[in-house]
Amino acid sequence: MTATHKRPRVVIIGAGFGGLWATRAMARFPVDVVLIDRSNYHTFLPMLYQVAAAELEPEDIAYPIRHLLRKLTNVQFILGEVKNVDLATQIVTTDTLPIPYDFLILAIGSTPNFFDVPGAAENALPLRSLEEGIALRNHILSCFERAVRDAGTDQREAQLTFSIVGGGPTGVEFSGALIELIRGPLLKDYSNLDFRLVRVVLLEALDSLMLGLPRSMQDYALLRLQKMGVEVYLKAKVRQVTPVAVHLTNGLVIPTETVVWTAGMRGDPLAESWEFPTAHGGRVEVLPTLQVPGHPNVYVIGDLAYMEVNGHSLPMVAPVAIQQGLAAVENIARQVAEEAPLPFHYRDRGMMAVIGRNAAVAHLFGRWAFTGFLAWVMWLALHLIRLIGFRNRLVVLINWAWDYLFYDRVVRLIIPRQRWRENQNG
Amino acid sequence: MTATHKRPRVVIIGAGFGGLWATRAMARFPVDVVLIDRSNYHTFLPMLYQVAAAELEPEDIAYPIRHLLRKLTNVQFILGEVKNVDLATQIVTTDTLPIPYDFLILAIGSTPNFFDVPGAAENALPLRSLEEGIALRNHILSCFERAVRDAGTDQREAQLTFSIVGGGPTGVEFSGALIELIRGPLLKDYSNLDFRLVRVVLLEALDSLMLGLPRSMQDYALLRLQKMGVEVYLKAKVRQVTPVAVHLTNGLVIPTETVVWTAGMRGDPLAESWEFPTAHGGRVEVLPTLQVPGHPNVYVIGDLAYMEVNGHSLPMVAPVAIQQGLAAVENIARQVAEEAPLPFHYRDRGMMAVIGRNAAVAHLFGRWAFTGFLAWVMWLALHLIRLIGFRNRLVVLINWAWDYLFYDRVVRLIIPRQRWRENQNG
Repeated sequence: MTATHKRPRVVIIGAGFGGLWATRAMARFPVDVVLIDRSNYHTFLPMLYQVAAAELEPEDIAYPIRHLLRKLTNVQFILGEVKNVDLATQIVTTDTLPIPYDFLILAIGSTPNFFDVPGAAENALPLRSLEEGIALRNHILSCFERAVRDAGTDQREAQLTFSIVGGGPTGVEFSGALIELIRGPLLKDYSNLDFRLVRVVLLEALDSLMLGLPRSMQDYALLRLQKMGVEVYLKAKVRQVTPVAVHLTNGLVIPTETVVWTAGMRGDPLAESWEFPTAHGGRVEVLPTLQVPGHPNVYVIGDLAYMEVNGHSLPMVAPVAIQQGLAAVENIARQVAEEAPLPFHYRDRGMMAVIGRNAAVAHLFGRWAFTGFLAWVMWLALHLIRLIGFRNRLVVLINWAWDYLFYDRVVRLIIPRQRWRENQNG
Repeated sequence: MTATHKRPRVVIIGAGFGGLWATRAMARFPVDVVLIDRSNYHTFLPMLYQVAAAELEPEDIAYPIRHLLRKLTNVQFILGEVKNVDLATQIVTTDTLPIPYDFLILAIGSTPNFFDVPGAAENALPLRSLEEGIALRNHILSCFERAVRDAGTDQREAQLTFSIVGGGPTGVEFSGALIELIRGPLLKDYSNLDFRLVRVVLLEALDSLMLGLPRSMQDYALLRLQKMGVEVYLKAKVRQVTPVAVHLTNGLVIPTETVVWTAGMRGDPLAESWEFPTAHGGRVEVLPTLQVPGHPNVYVIGDLAYMEVNGHSLPMVAPVAIQQGLAAVENIARQVAEEAPLPFHYRDRGMMAVIGRNAAVAHLFGRWAFTGFLAWVMWLALHLIRLIGFRNRLVVLINWAWDYLFYDRVVRLIIPRQRWRENQNG
């Protein structure tokens, strides 16, 4: 490809919520769009924890990118790894060919932040990609299989203790889904296993779950999880993670072979390696217009973008990424039309989290608070609508209905037949 | 576990059709059953080619073994690799604990037979396990992605030529499903790719497809595949397989990065390594009662068992395995009751194969021959009924209906994001 080009070329890196929505919006303008991602599918991350909890099949929350772009004739998709972005020469280098750009939207998102906790990066399981979700599912099911085989050994306590670090939405939702998997289908599957040995432990460093929600809702989430059988430790800071235990700063040692890390995210380190101006945990501090300081034709959106709104940084969630993607597209269109880009304003619709069967919290527009069954139905409806692809929705609905009606799940395959560590090097 | 045991222990190795049906039948008798498999799921292999052709999701044709055994209180499932079977001491050694047996049913099935064709084992892709099906799907989709990126290079011809070795049911069904994947969804996905370059080549060493069917049906399959765009080469013997080409004995060289091997099967080499008396391609020649000569308490069933019926060896297909599994169980029950085991008689219901949309062949009870739409509907109905698990059936039906109505497929994810060779070492 060459940059000698009648129409400006907009290169978008990353097909997450930000990059994908930006691509589809950008395609409506007289530009050539090149979308680059290392996967050929878009993952609906808000429901990834359900894949890890063997509630949904991976295909249910993933969708082929080319299918989504079919009708967009001015969009080209490239499956590949981006090796470098040169802001000076305006060239993106992939593992195959170099791609010059006139405008760039960087939307490569975030990676787990282990806050330099010793052993965390090596021994904790992240839950951020479809592969990681499958790997976690395989690991959890393998723990039960090994516990059944190794009956009577002293590894069993660690094999059957599942700990989740981080009491945010992901940690709360996953621990709830996990205890329901264990108390439901697995209880039936492993009839000769003593389930009093099975523990789900949720560790939160602060003194409440779900930072940012009203106290009453935080308490509701806490009580609900405890009622379901999750051991919740507040003010529990992790000092070290080993293959067989998690050590807390208060001296407590929890024997566990499963440490799921949902405690924090940081900007994808690639941005630093490409010499983007990063701060605040590897994120790029953008101008109010989402442009990179000093590079008016380069935009950063989504988890990777750092922006403060009256003293608070915007959360790393899908709605922010989507709204920023659309805003960046509008600004590029304005630049092409030789108008000045406009500052981005985030419309916060609130936050929702499912705790378990008939139980959720929904805090909308910073005003209305719902808990319990109503919030749960709202969550289901909203996420089902948001989930891309009609067929996916249908299959997800069947899986959920099945799960709900029969307290059962059918997605309990350890596949591929690999251990999660190998699996992660995907 | 010890063998000092009130009730006889029956150990069944392998949870394919033979082993699984045997397990469920054996559970009705006053014995303890131990089922061992290296996967925690049973795979419905007759539809594996549809996973490889991105028509079904892996979960659609796989089912958790523990779920199938839930209500069988005298059955224990062990997930693990069998390291050795000692016929003298009657002990099965797994990667964890040794398991003594009173009766043994060996049902470990078959592996591809490359007939010592140079390069075949290294470069050809088998299609016998769920992982191999996924790996093949990932490989095929990756070929298209690379072909789009590497536009203009001379690798393209090999990247876009997909060759299938073996014109039996699997080869015929897969080449038909593959050409429909290519001419349908992929044609829409890769709009800027010249599909005149894309070839599907089916190589059969004999002078007709589908050995064993009446000539008229063989011709129907051949013409139908050719009409769909598959290049069928008869009397085409493979001399060598390289990473970039397949060489025929007649001197023809077909540039291809994809060689799917469906040409032949052999007994799982494990049986030889355990010093079972093998012959005829690593299969165990059993007595008419399915017992291993000299070991009256050891039975071999399914693909691994070699048995001749008026001069012909029984085919390596699911119905044989299922019927043999049930027969072995009856004979063990008779031995426990101190009666003599009975010889096995195979009831051949015939053979079916789908060629493509509205096109199939069905040859029933060696008498009735159906082709076209009627045979296709019969195939769909039969396999849907046979497919384990109501929910699986529902989802498969949705996938098929979607595919049929919209000439489209939604399962086109390259996941896990690994290349098939790594992936295979699962």
